[in-house]
Amino acid sequence: MTSIGIYGSAGRMGRAIAEAAPGLGARVAGGADVADDPADLARKADVLVDFSAPAALEANLAAARAARTPIVVGTTGLAQRHHDLVDAAARDIAVLQTGNTSLGVALLCSLVRQAAERLGEGWDIEVLEMHHRNKVDAPSGTALMLGAAAADGLGTTLSEAAVYDRSGLTGARAEGTIGFASMRGGSVAGDHLVVFAGDGERIEMGHRAENRTIFAHGAIRAALWLAGRDPGRYTMDQVLGL
Amino acid sequence: MTSIGIYGSAGRMGRAIAEAAPGLGARVAGGADVADDPADLARKADVLVDFSAPAALEANLAAARAARTPIVVGTTGLAQRHHDLVDAAARDIAVLQTGNTSLGVALLCSLVRQAAERLGEGWDIEVLEMHHRNKVDAPSGTALMLGAAAADGLGTTLSEAAVYDRSGLTGARAEGTIGFASMRGGSVAGDHLVVFAGDGERIEMGHRAENRTIFAHGAIRAALWLAGRDPGRYTMDQVLGL
Amino acid sequence: MTSIGIYGSAGRMGRAIAEAAPGLGARVAGGADVADDPADLARKADVLVDFSAPAALEANLAAARAARTPIVVGTTGLAQRHHDLVDAAARDIAVLQTGNTSLGVALLCSLVRQAAERLGEGWDIEVLEMHHRNKVDAPSGTALMLGAAAADGLGTTLSEAAVYDRSGLTGARAEGTIGFASMRGGSVAGDHLVVFAGDGERIEMGHRAENRTIFAHGAIRAALWLAGRDPGRYTMDQVLGL
Amino acid sequence: MTSIGIYGSAGRMGRAIAEAAPGLGARVAGGADVADDPADLARKADVLVDFSAPAALEANLAAARAARTPIVVGTTGLAQRHHDLVDAAARDIAVLQTGNTSLGVALLCSLVRQAAERLGEGWDIEVLEMHHRNKVDAPSGTALMLGAAAADGLGTTLSEAAVYDRSGLTGARAEGTIGFASMRGGSVAGDHLVVFAGDGERIEMGHRAENRTIFAHGAIRAALWLAGRDPGRYTMDQVLGL
Repeated sequence: MTSIGIYGSAGRMGRAIAEAAPGLGARVAGGADVADDPADLARKADVLVDFSAPAALEANLAAARAARTPIVVGTTGLAQRHHDLVDAAARDIAVLQTGNTSLGVALLCSLVRQAAERLGEGWDIEVLEMHHRNKVDAPSGTALMLGAAAADGLGTTLSEAAVYDRSGLTGARAEGTIGFASMRGGSVAGDHLVVFAGDGERIEMGHRAENRTIFAHGAIRAALWLAGRDPGRYTMDQVLGL
Repeated sequence: MTSIGIYGSAGRMGRAIAEAAPGLGARVAGGADVADDPADLARKADVLVDFSAPAALEANLAAARAARTPIVVGTTGLAQRHHDLVDAAARDIAVLQTGNTSLGVALLCSLVRQAAERLGEGWDIEVLEMHHRNKVDAPSGTALMLGAAAADGLGTTLSEAAVYDRSGLTGARAEGTIGFASMRGGSVAGDHLVVFAGDGERIEMGHRAENRTIFAHGAIRAALWLAGRDPGRYTMDQVLGL
Repeated sequence: MTSIGIYGSAGRMGRAIAEAAPGLGARVAGGADVADDPADLARKADVLVDFSAPAALEANLAAARAARTPIVVGTTGLAQRHHDLVDAAARDIAVLQTGNTSLGVALLCSLVRQAAERLGEGWDIEVLEMHHRNKVDAPSGTALMLGAAAADGLGTTLSEAAVYDRSGLTGARAEGTIGFASMRGGSVAGDHLVVFAGDGERIEMGHRAENRTIFAHGAIRAALWLAGRDPGRYTMDQVLGL
Repeated sequence: MTSIGIYGSAGRMGRAIAEAAPGLGARVAGGADVADDPADLARKADVLVDFSAPAALEANLAAARAARTPIVVGTTGLAQRHHDLVDAAARDIAVLQTGNTSLGVALLCSLVRQAAERLGEGWDIEVLEMHHRNKVDAPSGTALMLGAAAADGLGTTLSEAAVYDRSGLTGARAEGTIGFASMRGGSVAGDHLVVFAGDGERIEMGHRAENRTIFAHGAIRAALWLAGRDPGRYTMDQVLGL
């Protein structure tokens, strides 16, 4: 039975993963408590999942590399330097970093990429997300994933195309940009919508998560798939066979 | 300049096509009035479009075949025998029959087919549409197109999978079915939504038309593309290069 | 501590109520098992809640009347004769029958009634609902409540105005009717939308339940409020002070 | 026949008003061309409508005051000093300033105010809007109206409660705030949604405009109602008898 070590085990996602693991044929390494020592957990576990915080990522990746233990990184709010750390770690161990571990979102990303590519000019792309009142970063990691998929379909990148704030005298919308809008409130587990707005018509493609269970299931599925893999950077599409 | 003959020129779509044609480089054959004699219009026009009524389809197709004039059939509410008539006509002339002439809907059909295929078991598919208060048939031709695309992705057909009415003591939802729901009211040009509902998550893919102009433009684009083609049955995907 | 007796304690709602009761200061009378004998449970409990099935309602109400125990009826799929039974029981005991026990839905009903009254002619009203794949009746009890509120605002009744099926050659929408559409799939706890469609504009008012907990909480809140009341028929608005 | 003078007659709304006026029993004063001299138009017309730009408001109001001609102000993107100008003008003439002239939006504001008041604590309020790619300010005037109605229901003001930008490390949502999110794209005439998000449930109340005609009709209706009124500040609710 594969043992999973959880960084961020006291958080919402960490607890959801610990709770769901036994039902999916996995064991939680070292209990579900917060691991004081990342190195210790990395040595005990067959595979790690990190849902802690960007500030903890460097130490967690270092521990994983030292112990040669594969790791699923689900922490959101990552900056470029965190992605560089992930790339570096992938030279020594198997790493899967994703802003969202649900099957539905992985599929949606692939459909959004296609739509952006095939619709081409004249269609404006906007990404909307809503999450619970306690979420501390915006846009969500998933919204950024969807935006990146759209940018990829347009032949550009998110850093080129993204527009994050729209308030005041913004002027007309610039062609080829991808706008983001974030709503916060209540206990919403996570709703996302990508809008393609053309002249006289709109295509809307969205995902609604009813609760965090789907993300916990997806993270465990990813961890079980990643355990024992060769070094490298992997994606949810590979896990899900998409 | 290509001349387009319109069957059903006094209807909403017929008038919208007549109005938009000159701006798209087409001429309306014989004016925009109702053609009393389908044969006469078929002889005058380079290509025909039919947005009349199912009851008129047989005569209109016969006129098109006799004159060897290609025809775009956009009439909705067709039964199997109408589709058989279309197939028969396609042996002699170029025919493009579609429930919806917008670029957005054509793309959506393709994405829905993929989603159905890749999500597989455990995801229930439902198609919702809303149209203006004067629409006389339900579900809309477009809803049926989207449902057929989903059925195709599931490896089945709409006649196998479709469930059209849900009221009273329906019992639990049968696996593998595709449900349809229709709303009517106001002046809604046409909204469609396909829902894939799994355990704890939903994917929603929809299209909103702001007005009939997009359908008129698409019908004219299809007509211009179809004029001069060899006999056979064509699709909007071919017109749009999807 | 008020003791609540649950008819239908093995169902989804019954279990949710049993689980949530202690946290809201209530005790479950006779455990959370299915009560074989309605009379026995009615004698033991301070107040009853019924989330069983229409077929069990007559016996449950008789047991409640015999024991003079107030009862909250949350069972859906009731026919006119069930409502007559509820009315009859209300002569001897306090009864609160409702299709939905959430605060949000109670408020929504009140807003829908007002909108229907103030918009008046020229606005078509449609009610849409989506529930999980195991729901056996359609439209949902909540959709019927919302439709009844709209009918009340229009100065009519649901039996006069409701249109339940729209498929085939329906003809144009009749003025003053209220249409219902039902979708089924996945694990959706309950989404409702009331659309007012006018010329060129739409007002949409909806409710989304993330899980059954809100209904369980509302049912317990209603039961605690109903315990000890005089005979009569009560509503969620009274419980919630709306 | 009442004559309407249009400031901003070359803009989208100005042209829509000029086109619709005759059908609603009004005459356009001085033609539909841009009025070079605001004073001249103010003297010719029975009532004015201003859909120009914030920068032109001061001169337009001065012209209206000098000629004692009532004025409907529909320009959006107004700052506090513009509202002060409107208040000052209302001492001498009848003024109706509104961010939206549709019947549906006026009703929605009233329902949003009530919902905010009755739901009370524990429900987070968010306002979302989407408009066409050429709109130059955000949030829309209508979104601000809806937010102000919600703030009023909460017993606060928009300047106290509004949060306009959400990107980066925002921290958790502060209680009692009202968030705004804006999307831009295509030819969307104007969609608005107010979300009340509680624990486990959401109420959503929205409005969709299919085209600008409804706003033009509402502006003309307001102008006809305002012509001949005593000095003072009036609202769409009064025009519509809500």
